Amino acid sequence: MSHAVSPLAPKSFAEMPAIDGVRMATAEAGIKYKNRTDVLLMVFDEPASVAGVFTRSKCPSAPVDFCRQNLPSGRARAVVVNSGNANAFTGKKGKAATELTAKSASEAVGCAMSDVYLASTGVIGEPLDATKFAGVLGDMNGRATGDFWFEAAKAIMTTDTYPKVATRSAKIGDVTVTINGIAKGAGMIAPDMATMLSFVVTDADIAPGALQALLSKGVGPSFNSVTVDSDTSTSDTLMLFATGAAAKRGQKKIDNATAAELADFAKALDGLLLDLAHQVVCDGEGARKMLEVTVTGATSDESAKKIALSIANSPLVKTAVAGEDANWGRVVMAVGKAGEPADRDLLAISFGNVRVAVDGERDPDYSEAAASAVMKEARIPVTVDLRLGTGRATVWTCDLTKEYVEINGDYRS
Amino acid sequence: MSHAVSPLAPKSFAEMPAIDGVRMATAEAGIKYKNRTDVLLMVFDEPASVAGVFTRSKCPSAPVDFCRQNLPSGRARAVVVNSGNANAFTGKKGKAATELTAKSASEAVGCAMSDVYLASTGVIGEPLDATKFAGVLGDMNGRATGDFWFEAAKAIMTTDTYPKVATRSAKIGDVTVTINGIAKGAGMIAPDMATMLSFVVTDADIAPGALQALLSKGVGPSFNSVTVDSDTSTSDTLMLFATGAAAKRGQKKIDNATAAELADFAKALDGLLLDLAHQVVCDGEGARKMLEVTVTGATSDESAKKIALSIANSPLVKTAVAGEDANWGRVVMAVGKAGEPADRDLLAISFGNVRVAVDGERDPDYSEAAASAVMKEARIPVTVDLRLGTGRATVWTCDLTKEYVEINGDYRS
Repeated sequence: MSHAVSPLAPKSFAEMPAIDGVRMATAEAGIKYKNRTDVLLMVFDEPASVAGVFTRSKCPSAPVDFCRQNLPSGRARAVVVNSGNANAFTGKKGKAATELTAKSASEAVGCAMSDVYLASTGVIGEPLDATKFAGVLGDMNGRATGDFWFEAAKAIMTTDTYPKVATRSAKIGDVTVTINGIAKGAGMIAPDMATMLSFVVTDADIAPGALQALLSKGVGPSFNSVTVDSDTSTSDTLMLFATGAAAKRGQKKIDNATAAELADFAKALDGLLLDLAHQVVCDGEGARKMLEVTVTGATSDESAKKIALSIANSPLVKTAVAGEDANWGRVVMAVGKAGEPADRDLLAISFGNVRVAVDGERDPDYSEAAASAVMKEARIPVTVDLRLGTGRATVWTCDLTKEYVEINGDYRS
Repeated sequence: MSHAVSPLAPKSFAEMPAIDGVRMATAEAGIKYKNRTDVLLMVFDEPASVAGVFTRSKCPSAPVDFCRQNLPSGRARAVVVNSGNANAFTGKKGKAATELTAKSASEAVGCAMSDVYLASTGVIGEPLDATKFAGVLGDMNGRATGDFWFEAAKAIMTTDTYPKVATRSAKIGDVTVTINGIAKGAGMIAPDMATMLSFVVTDADIAPGALQALLSKGVGPSFNSVTVDSDTSTSDTLMLFATGAAAKRGQKKIDNATAAELADFAKALDGLLLDLAHQVVCDGEGARKMLEVTVTGATSDESAKKIALSIANSPLVKTAVAGEDANWGRVVMAVGKAGEPADRDLLAISFGNVRVAVDGERDPDYSEAAASAVMKEARIPVTVDLRLGTGRATVWTCDLTKEYVEINGDYRS
């Protein structure tokens, strides 16, 4: 199954610099696809600090279980990611497959199994034949290289229509460090595909606890503020690795996430996470438009986010956007169903700069033509002001199109 | 905009008997549609007992506010329902419109405004011109008749593809009483259409408090167990009226919902509510298949219902059903995202009588052909056994098709 590149794809891809301390290689392990790479190996020759956030699903995949088990050490030497099979809902076979993959990786790289991290994306419920990795990982380690980010992003794609890459630089003290990230699609849970995966690596020298704090904070307004279809995969995995190579250039190791020297780094990391999250939304299945939903005036930021997600997950709002219809009645509906404090008669709603409703009714100055012009854009900002308090949140989603139904209604192939 | 009748429509409609104590008429008030009836008047010449349940939306329509205000009296003389305009998010104009409509009805019927109940369905955010009712309600009262149920059901349709009617009879003591109900679609929130509306009338003599208890209990496993697209309208209204005319035939008035004499009536009412709720799902926008999701073995009935609704509202499950794909991986995903207690490695999932997964992995005896045969049916039962406890629930939904997107992505007309 192949689909045209999303019209929301970036016009060009970031130039991804090599990052000291990490090498990568991809291979064709033949998990599901033919004639394309489907396995990625990342190697840290010196142990890297590691942090991770995972799906909240009560039915997580075997690789998610495996990563959670290793994460407390905060130490990583290798990462193996495959596409084509999610190793999810595979029972005892799933656990055996993660053990075998980690064993193969530990032998190839020369590290403990507890220093290996795994992620899988693809079909749910099919046993993963991990013996296929054993034959390729040694060779991959031999040829792994630092200048390989774009190829790495391609190897982890499933129904993504473009690879997702982002890079930032930041100062820690006087030393410039680099952050690179790759991701694959969420809501790209196409015929049995499960997963949003993202891997971010920096050469900064940051202790695991501080790294985890940065990641846990950064994921809130980025990956946890985007939604394609409200469905949560069994395999969502976002990992952040710090090789520490910048120490050789004089960067003083950071142990505390609140250290003043980390401010610029934290800002750069947040920007990179948001960049990747936006790329994921723009490649939502069948997406033609991106919707940015901002809720202001809520009783709290949490309440604002719940209302914003209620709007962004509403099939009726999303189909209206697909139809270029400035249908603010459905926005009111979605505010009302969120169950959060809202006063119908105080609401104001804007599409772009066009205020369509105020004081709980249609704006007297509302112009259908002006609102329709906004809806023809590829990126559509919707703002709802509840006028109750100071809570605010922004989330992003895409429209719900016939192509979404087509992609997800096809038989598993 | 016109769409072909749903393939899930009933093959024939129930013969709706007249019910002593209620008369009805419809008219063309010209609210939005041309050449079709768009207003229904129900008249109770003797005061009827009344009970109601309404949308949980924090942004309810003006008629919902109006009904809630009158309901504590438990007394009804007239009901006015219009299609074409929901009188929702219409600010002070909305309240003025309900007042004017109730005043017109009270003058036409000769009752207090507090004995009038209102419901509106249609466009959100457009002021409703209630002066249009003033001219027709008097005439409607003059010609209102008991044998008019099917016409009443037609007058309240918006994008429904068929009228929804149901009737039951029951014994209270030695006296046979009748229950009739009409409904219009949920998730039929088509271009700006908001609303599930249903009106049920019986000739039984039951006090308002008992009536409300019966309705509140009956709505749980029926209307509150169906979902089309997870969106909640601003206007959902379900009202139950008891004319008390059966008292003339010797029925002893019932004051208490737990009275033993009410058992048969309660069962008949529950059956009628479920019948109407199923008719609503089968007319979900673009629906081609009905999905019955049963969750067993949950830690509680409430937990089972949350998981069942998570499955029934999942766009990925619903598109798989549209594609006739026995995609149990997506069912696992939806169980996992519900946030309720579930153990991945205990789950068993069946489509129809075909068990596709057991003990947290694909059933060793799974037959793709047998599962696919189930998916070709118009009504598809999915059962998930969590094997944790005794909680259970069943909910109903329809598939998510390209037609849903088409209907809801069209411009407001």
